[in-house]
Amino acid sequence: MASTASVTENVKAMFEQVPPPHVLTVAGTGGGAGIQADLKTITALGCYGSSVLTAVTAQNTLGVQGVHAIPPSFVISQLQSVFDDLPPASVKFGMLAGADTILELSRFFSALKSLTPSAPYLILDPVMVSTSGHDLLKQEATKTLRDELIPLVDLLTPNIPEAVVLAERTAEIEGLGDMIALARELAQKGPAVLLKGGHLDLSARDVRRTKLEQDTKVYHLRPDSLVCRDYATSLQLPDAEEVVVDVLADKGGVRLFIGPKVNSSSTHGTGCTLSAALAANYAKQREREDLEAEAEQQKTDGDDEGKKRKHHISDDTIAASIAYVQGAIAAAFPMGAGHGPLNHGHLSMQRPLPPPTTANPTPFTDHLIRSCGSLWDEYVQHPFVVQLGQGTLPLDAFKHYIVQDWHYLRHYARVHGLGAFKASDFDTIQAFAEIALHIAKESEMHVEYCKQFGISRPQLEAAPESTACSAYARYMLDVSSQGNVLDTYVAVLSCLIGYGEVGLWLANRVETGEATLEGNPYKRWMEDYAGADFIGAVRRGIANLERRVAQDPPSEARLAQLAEIFRECVKLERDFWQSGLEMSY
Amino acid sequence: MASTASVTENVKAMFEQVPPPHVLTVAGTGGGAGIQADLKTITALGCYGSSVLTAVTAQNTLGVQGVHAIPPSFVISQLQSVFDDLPPASVKFGMLAGADTILELSRFFSALKSLTPSAPYLILDPVMVSTSGHDLLKQEATKTLRDELIPLVDLLTPNIPEAVVLAERTAEIEGLGDMIALARELAQKGPAVLLKGGHLDLSARDVRRTKLEQDTKVYHLRPDSLVCRDYATSLQLPDAEEVVVDVLADKGGVRLFIGPKVNSSSTHGTGCTLSAALAANYAKQREREDLEAEAEQQKTDGDDEGKKRKHHISDDTIAASIAYVQGAIAAAFPMGAGHGPLNHGHLSMQRPLPPPTTANPTPFTDHLIRSCGSLWDEYVQHPFVVQLGQGTLPLDAFKHYIVQDWHYLRHYARVHGLGAFKASDFDTIQAFAEIALHIAKESEMHVEYCKQFGISRPQLEAAPESTACSAYARYMLDVSSQGNVLDTYVAVLSCLIGYGEVGLWLANRVETGEATLEGNPYKRWMEDYAGADFIGAVRRGIANLERRVAQDPPSEARLAQLAEIFRECVKLERDFWQSGLEMSY
Repeated sequence: MASTASVTENVKAMFEQVPPPHVLTVAGTGGGAGIQADLKTITALGCYGSSVLTAVTAQNTLGVQGVHAIPPSFVISQLQSVFDDLPPASVKFGMLAGADTILELSRFFSALKSLTPSAPYLILDPVMVSTSGHDLLKQEATKTLRDELIPLVDLLTPNIPEAVVLAERTAEIEGLGDMIALARELAQKGPAVLLKGGHLDLSARDVRRTKLEQDTKVYHLRPDSLVCRDYATSLQLPDAEEVVVDVLADKGGVRLFIGPKVNSSSTHGTGCTLSAALAANYAKQREREDLEAEAEQQKTDGDDEGKKRKHHISDDTIAASIAYVQGAIAAAFPMGAGHGPLNHGHLSMQRPLPPPTTANPTPFTDHLIRSCGSLWDEYVQHPFVVQLGQGTLPLDAFKHYIVQDWHYLRHYARVHGLGAFKASDFDTIQAFAEIALHIAKESEMHVEYCKQFGISRPQLEAAPESTACSAYARYMLDVSSQGNVLDTYVAVLSCLIGYGEVGLWLANRVETGEATLEGNPYKRWMEDYAGADFIGAVRRGIANLERRVAQDPPSEARLAQLAEIFRECVKLERDFWQSGLEMSY
Repeated sequence: MASTASVTENVKAMFEQVPPPHVLTVAGTGGGAGIQADLKTITALGCYGSSVLTAVTAQNTLGVQGVHAIPPSFVISQLQSVFDDLPPASVKFGMLAGADTILELSRFFSALKSLTPSAPYLILDPVMVSTSGHDLLKQEATKTLRDELIPLVDLLTPNIPEAVVLAERTAEIEGLGDMIALARELAQKGPAVLLKGGHLDLSARDVRRTKLEQDTKVYHLRPDSLVCRDYATSLQLPDAEEVVVDVLADKGGVRLFIGPKVNSSSTHGTGCTLSAALAANYAKQREREDLEAEAEQQKTDGDDEGKKRKHHISDDTIAASIAYVQGAIAAAFPMGAGHGPLNHGHLSMQRPLPPPTTANPTPFTDHLIRSCGSLWDEYVQHPFVVQLGQGTLPLDAFKHYIVQDWHYLRHYARVHGLGAFKASDFDTIQAFAEIALHIAKESEMHVEYCKQFGISRPQLEAAPESTACSAYARYMLDVSSQGNVLDTYVAVLSCLIGYGEVGLWLANRVETGEATLEGNPYKRWMEDYAGADFIGAVRRGIANLERRVAQDPPSEARLAQLAEIFRECVKLERDFWQSGLEMSY
């Protein structure tokens, strides 16, 4: 009974993970923008997204047709509900409706900051004008934003027109130099400033010609490999290439993030998406750093200063967030008659299989079995098996089967040798080698059986390999040679779990009187394959495979390939029984 | 110049796809439930989610602390914005706030139905009480729901208490028989009814003992394999196993969906999630069927009746939706102090790479190059290459290089032979065979070079293989043997694209005067590798690989493995130049 729950226990470590970081968006609804874009972004980046609504809009890709503001007191009620139960790691503010709401929010977060040392990281996207040109913040509210909320936030993400208003500038922004100066100026007011460059036409040459101060770092968001470029531009330095430069300014200096300009009309909610991506990527950065600090602390046995230290948003986090938005624009489908939404799911993939959980520890094995359809029952409930369970199977059929199974086992052991070759680590090499050894031992039992049947060892070795045996054995060897170690695992699986299933199925039939052990000449065979030893090995095999698959989840195409291998093996197993019954070569 | 844009053109087919189906949720905000749960579900299932808000709630895992209803007229304004621009394939209704809203919605959809023959599929989750016990629909609104909206919808998804209210029943529901009768009764009012069984305790034995009518189909949501079960239950039929049965009743009869009972406190938003999953999976079903109908129509050259026919929600769609919810509960992390949210992302995976797009056609190749860090430049801008470009490379070093490169090419051709063995289709076999042939031809040029240097063919063949050559060649052969065809592609990549990069880089240096062709003894070598023929081959190779990777996207673990192979090859390439420079064996 030691093997009882081994499948579940073996995969347990995989689903005992920490919950994802919590990211809150405080904003309005916005069709392809607003909290919809925020929640999609936060979810796509692997965080838990919650939302507090400041306004509901009637909006589509063509524009904003109406706004219903939520009463400021109810905005705070929503915030209170979130913070009472599940304080977020970061908060992004988008459309804030009006001066009253901004004032209430400022009070709430000001109080929070004075109360909790590890208050969430605050990112403000000062939404004033929508992509479609609709005014989303009245003039009088801008002052409240500047005086009350901005001093509280950690990161401000204006575009150029918004930054101009917030800095109370009048001069035009004409080049990268002006942009950098504007970002520096705004950053003096407190928060770090990520000034978005989408509104400024720049070429690679313009960027190269801009004089940069010593405190400036430059990041290129795509590697500059020549072979990946178009032939026309690859033989000359791409001076004329259009680029977008986002400028980060804070006390540490200036960073430029240079990316390709993506021409697209799918830009509805670009700003929302960037600030939500920053909030999500920041929350993940903080979680990573906290885990590292915790590990460090355990080593040095220090106090818990580490947990309370203020996290600084890293350049990597910013670069990843900008790249996410660029990717979401580049991969967008045209939708609607105006500015369409981004493709927030461009970095997400539907898994064809769920991960193993306590309630469902074997999704991969279940899928393989299910995708065999009726073939699976044709294999494990084959007439050969039924007759064996009833003790009515002709002895000559069993003899034929045992001789062929001995040939089969020889190849089956060789596949495990090939598995050891395909392995990359000693654990896997050892596992395959152990099974190969075990199979070699099992083959001795076959030799014993044969001796009882009057078949000598030399006769056994000289016995021809049946077509059914050859087809199956050589198929396993071929897919294992052709594929990688996972193909090998799947190729040997149908034999392993099928015999376990046959053993348990026959044991069930003994219980219900449809099969019998008493006086059955095949009693030992039946007991062996239903025994705790064999079933334990089967379950360890299943758990091992589930763990591998969970750690390196297959795409839909790859899963189909693996299911096809399993299915073919199940068919060949069925034919193997059939050949035993017919005693065919 | 024919090869100019081949990378982009070759991958173009991959990103010219149809937009995802559009699914609308009409509901309230709900923390882990409501439109948040809906949008996460719709997105996770690969659809584009939009939302129309009927109410904003202050809510957390402990309960609902407040409700702010949106004025019914503004609910309709939001709907109008959505339908004016982007009519959805399906709509789900959740929390509807009050009788007025329900009445307005009924009018809107009644008018829509009479106007458009292909109106969206409507699913109503009659939310009356939240998981936390909060009344979400006043008594008087229930009548409006029953009389006005329910007759318009296609599918109704009540739980047992809601169904009892809607059917105006008084008797208790005590078993599966009662449940089926209740579902049948409700279905007589018009829409199909999916009656959710979560509130009824049932065992597998209870289900088996229930008498079923002839028109009833039974679906098991998990395969019943014995080896995947716990040992304790696998030897007996699992009579006592707790199950949840959802009952679908419509004009076609009754279907039972039997799944395992998952004990969890993460059930906040279960009903919302199910109806959203049904809406999303229905939209995908409809898209699939429309595509099939279109293909059929093109064959038969018929009229466009197919497009307008009413789609029936399939049993598969319902089973997949229930399984999604069960998986989301099973994979949930405990969050908050009360009933936590589901894990809506349990069937989603973050891709470590975006798909190729026009703006970024080579994400895989870019990633490989970027993950080499400075090694890439150490390879393609190696002193051997610099001196070669300036014509200052000692001839003996070049001779040494050419002899070793001839050895290398022999192994490089063998790897392509192995690639043909690893292939599964004739296109791939042909591609590898062609390159092997091409390499064999290229080796003749090396023989020519050697002849010029006074090295005869027998001398060339007898020349010892340097350690640098052997290490690199045998590494490629090993990873190709050990892995599958993708490992082979990556193993041969650094040589292919590296030489293209070297060719283009040297051509650039000729432009800027840092290298020269005139009087350079290595002129032909330089021209060969920057030539349109070779660069064309490189770009076709990149495009082919990008297409393969996009069709079978690697997991993070697999990508790391591939990047490691590429990195090792780049290092060995660098060492190969170095060995040429040092003339070492």
